[in-house]
Amino acid sequence: MSELENDVGVLEANSAFYKAFESLDIEAMNAVWDHQEPILCVHPGWPLIQTRERVMESWSRIFDNATLIQFAITGTKPVIEGDAAWVSCTENITQVLDGRVVEVKIQATNLFRRQLGNWYLAHHHGSPVG
Amino acid sequence: MSELENDVGVLEANSAFYKAFESLDIEAMNAVWDHQEPILCVHPGWPLIQTRERVMESWSRIFDNATLIQFAITGTKPVIEGDAAWVSCTENITQVLDGRVVEVKIQATNLFRRQLGNWYLAHHHGSPVG
Repeated sequence: MSELENDVGVLEANSAFYKAFESLDIEAMNAVWDHQEPILCVHPGWPLIQTRERVMESWSRIFDNATLIQFAITGTKPVIEGDAAWVSCTENITQVLDGRVVEVKIQATNLFRRQLGNWYLAHHHGSPVG
Repeated sequence: MSELENDVGVLEANSAFYKAFESLDIEAMNAVWDHQEPILCVHPGWPLIQTRERVMESWSRIFDNATLIQFAITGTKPVIEGDAAWVSCTENITQVLDGRVVEVKIQATNLFRRQLGNWYLAHHHGSPVG
């Protein structure tokens, strides 16, 4: 597989993650994450969440409480190292909270593992940019 | 190399990073980071910094402005995938700022690459825990 094809696969997996988040679709989010442990997740301002089960529960809670959320992803930098890859990007989020439009900027590190040629999310770390 | 030996090497590299940070020793910090690009770093609340040169400049600025900083690292979780590894941990930081003792908690994702049997830091992402 060429380096470019690798990059495309990782970038597609990263886009699928944000598409699932934006659509608040828990099944799509479930499909994005690796089925093998360890699975780790740090939502902005939250402590570390471990295990696939707890990470998926956290997404359910987030989706249950969200109404409208839109992502513009910028500054995407993919790095591939064998069957591991990490993507750095900025999430420019527009959200409706209590009837008001709120814009926030989150810096994210997304880590993927390759399983049978496909990339799956194994670690997400999002944090507010000052 | 056994799985345990791998784990030990990654955990030692993670400890060396915090030892360099705590001692405010720029040469030790320089030795911790991979000499190959891409190098990425997100300090708490900062935007992404790219390239080894700019990341090392950021450490110089941080070290120049720091007086006393102590780390207690807890909840360390290493994950190894071939020649890549990531460590999740909580930095319990005690710092003296303007003559006052300040305690902060930072959640970190540290990513390492293996070069000739040694693990080097390639990506650091630290963010405040609410």
